[in-house]
Amino acid sequence: MSIERLVVIGGDAAGMSAASQARRLKGPGELEIVAFERGHFTSFSACGIPYWVGGDVNGRDDLIARTPEEHRARGIDLRLRTEVTEIDVAGRRVRARAVDSGAESWTSYDKLVIATGARPIRPDMPGMDAQGVHGVQTLDDGQALIDTLARARGKRAVVVGAGYIGVEMAEALIKRGYEVTVVNRGSEPMSTLDPDMGRLVRRAMEGLGITMVNDTEVIAVRTAEDGHVRAVVTEDAEYPADVVVLGIGVRPETGLAKAAGLPLGTHGGLLTDLAMRVRGPLADGSVWAGGDCVEVLDLVSGQERHIALGTHANKHGQVIGTNVGGGYATFPGVVGTAVSKVCDLEIARTGLREKDARRVGLRFEAVTIESTSRAGYYPGASPMTVKMLAERRTGRLLGLQIVGREGAGKRVDIAAVALTAGMTVEQMTALDLGYAPPFSPVWDPVLVAARKASAKVRDS
Amino acid sequence: MSIERLVVIGGDAAGMSAASQARRLKGPGELEIVAFERGHFTSFSACGIPYWVGGDVNGRDDLIARTPEEHRARGIDLRLRTEVTEIDVAGRRVRARAVDSGAESWTSYDKLVIATGARPIRPDMPGMDAQGVHGVQTLDDGQALIDTLARARGKRAVVVGAGYIGVEMAEALIKRGYEVTVVNRGSEPMSTLDPDMGRLVRRAMEGLGITMVNDTEVIAVRTAEDGHVRAVVTEDAEYPADVVVLGIGVRPETGLAKAAGLPLGTHGGLLTDLAMRVRGPLADGSVWAGGDCVEVLDLVSGQERHIALGTHANKHGQVIGTNVGGGYATFPGVVGTAVSKVCDLEIARTGLREKDARRVGLRFEAVTIESTSRAGYYPGASPMTVKMLAERRTGRLLGLQIVGREGAGKRVDIAAVALTAGMTVEQMTALDLGYAPPFSPVWDPVLVAARKASAKVRDS
Repeated sequence: MSIERLVVIGGDAAGMSAASQARRLKGPGELEIVAFERGHFTSFSACGIPYWVGGDVNGRDDLIARTPEEHRARGIDLRLRTEVTEIDVAGRRVRARAVDSGAESWTSYDKLVIATGARPIRPDMPGMDAQGVHGVQTLDDGQALIDTLARARGKRAVVVGAGYIGVEMAEALIKRGYEVTVVNRGSEPMSTLDPDMGRLVRRAMEGLGITMVNDTEVIAVRTAEDGHVRAVVTEDAEYPADVVVLGIGVRPETGLAKAAGLPLGTHGGLLTDLAMRVRGPLADGSVWAGGDCVEVLDLVSGQERHIALGTHANKHGQVIGTNVGGGYATFPGVVGTAVSKVCDLEIARTGLREKDARRVGLRFEAVTIESTSRAGYYPGASPMTVKMLAERRTGRLLGLQIVGREGAGKRVDIAAVALTAGMTVEQMTALDLGYAPPFSPVWDPVLVAARKASAKVRDS
Repeated sequence: MSIERLVVIGGDAAGMSAASQARRLKGPGELEIVAFERGHFTSFSACGIPYWVGGDVNGRDDLIARTPEEHRARGIDLRLRTEVTEIDVAGRRVRARAVDSGAESWTSYDKLVIATGARPIRPDMPGMDAQGVHGVQTLDDGQALIDTLARARGKRAVVVGAGYIGVEMAEALIKRGYEVTVVNRGSEPMSTLDPDMGRLVRRAMEGLGITMVNDTEVIAVRTAEDGHVRAVVTEDAEYPADVVVLGIGVRPETGLAKAAGLPLGTHGGLLTDLAMRVRGPLADGSVWAGGDCVEVLDLVSGQERHIALGTHANKHGQVIGTNVGGGYATFPGVVGTAVSKVCDLEIARTGLREKDARRVGLRFEAVTIESTSRAGYYPGASPMTVKMLAERRTGRLLGLQIVGREGAGKRVDIAAVALTAGMTVEQMTALDLGYAPPFSPVWDPVLVAARKASAKVRDS
């Protein structure tokens, strides 16, 4: 029996999960595994960077789930600081360049995993390359930001973008004693929520002393004579800044794949089948892709989306590794669940927002209710706002959004499972959810929302 | 149009929810509502009594969701301290007796709701009527216990039974400075869990200084000369006690219904259809029942069960009130979800235990995993044990049990929804659950359990 070679491009969650799972199923006598990573680290939690910056996490090493040495000990030929510069799909080989020496060479593969991740969007405008302007996508990015904060001249920070990374970074900088301004293109922060729910997040952020500037576009970064950032300029104003953090989202890193002729989706990500195998005529079944560089099927809208999230990347890697290792596994898609927090405010969402439902032509009813995390009389009961969307006539659950305090966020999982199962809001009213005074009012907030949504669907 | 009369027996969650919902749908010009309650209170949270005793809740009034005056203001003719002594189903009337005066009279009905609740099991043995021996089913019970504690001579408490009420009362008494012994018939506390999970609860209770005595039966209560409790006697030993709390469960209070010829189920509860209408030849469609006096369908085992829980009682009342009020609603059944806590230990379960699955002849695989409530590197991440049962071959989820700290308990809702939807553990591995470091590891503990269960089903 000849030994097959698996080549993995990208040493983070998806790539190294795939490599590890394949190794679990096939030993070095059956499968050789070569993984290329252009950075210094493997298998790190990018989602943890804001907490490292904010001081909740001790240090960089805490964010590393598995070190290069651990991977190598499991028989993975990991090549750090080595960047793949070309994929030759027809020839089943990749060209890689050692970042430090510049030396290049080709490596052939029987199976290829593309896990090149995503890169932060850096608007094309003057001053973006100034010192003190930071993305927070990789551990190297996080380290660079922490170094800037250590050297800082002043204590004014501007965060560009108010999605979950922007909001989490605003909290981290507040914790480090900064005066924080968040500059946001949308009408409210957290555009993954409907604006009426985003407004609750804005109020909480303002309550923390964060200055929230909505409905505005950054047009330039002004630099001092020494090349360090001095201010962020928007259409309407100028905000002095000693440090700038970019939290305006990420794009799939698919330049290599595109150059290789692999077709990309409308969001610029690779498209795969359920087994995470790359689709398209060129991909002959030997190419797999997962993590932040792929688009995923939204099971509620039926459309492809790009969602950069560690939990999906890990699932992709697991699925790919199982399939490459001779088993069979699938990733059916997502329902769009996300949860985040800013100080003690918990923010969660799953499924479709109002504008998503409109975009795909669904008619819906939306309801919003107020409830509490525990029985009203139990200590620590805190208020929670729940918004629910249901399809008109059928009553099918379309989405859920929650803004509240302790105990609010993970309630979104109830709706995530219900969406996956295609439940109606009427069916949800009968759900047998855990009840005891320290955990929930006698009607869980999600049940209260389901009752109201069900009544509205019935009356419509 | 003639005015119909609805008679409700029992002024707690199920009965008064039914009355309120019927009133919402039909005004006093259409429907007269008469509610009989033999106690002093309406619509109270029995589940809150342990927290009142333990001092987490300020006082009795906090546990009352709606007072008699509030019900009356909504046009419900509420008759407190009035006990129904007979139901004449053929004659469509009930006989009621004023508890204080003893006066009796008949009231006719067009529709009847039986919501007589449950009563604590009081073993038939010497000394059970001693002063200082308390159930905790009603607010009157709670008040009597608190009065006893205020007068107490010593600080030794014995709790009989280690189900969720026993465990919660043990915590309450520890908080009040008592030396607490829990005497339990089963091999571990929390017999709603499998013993291997109950063992984790026992260890935590012992860590709190609670003395846990398993595998033993109480045979008598010893009294002092003044009639106050002095000790609890088991088969093997005698435990000095200044106060005794009974936490050995409840039975449906269905004496009235039985005397009226309505058939009862194997657990002694009334049996209803999906609309909560009492089944059986005598019930001519005018009799409804809900709350702790009925049996409910377990959607996982397909068998009837008796589960006394406020959240079910409220749902029953809502369904009955809707149907009585001319709408249509159903209560399809339960999956057996329950959550409780003892100090900071959270305990949750849903679906079938090993012995339930065996009893109904299901072949299953069981897995147990250890994980954490948050990303391991995030402050406050606490350990959690999750046990999952899946049907052999089909992989259908059968049950989930969780023992952990903050953030553990309500995760059971994920499985409650999955059970309702009939998901397989394989399907569960792909669930899009909320992930961010403060809320979950990148693989939620429930996903970790589903992966392990799925692999075990596949390999079996």
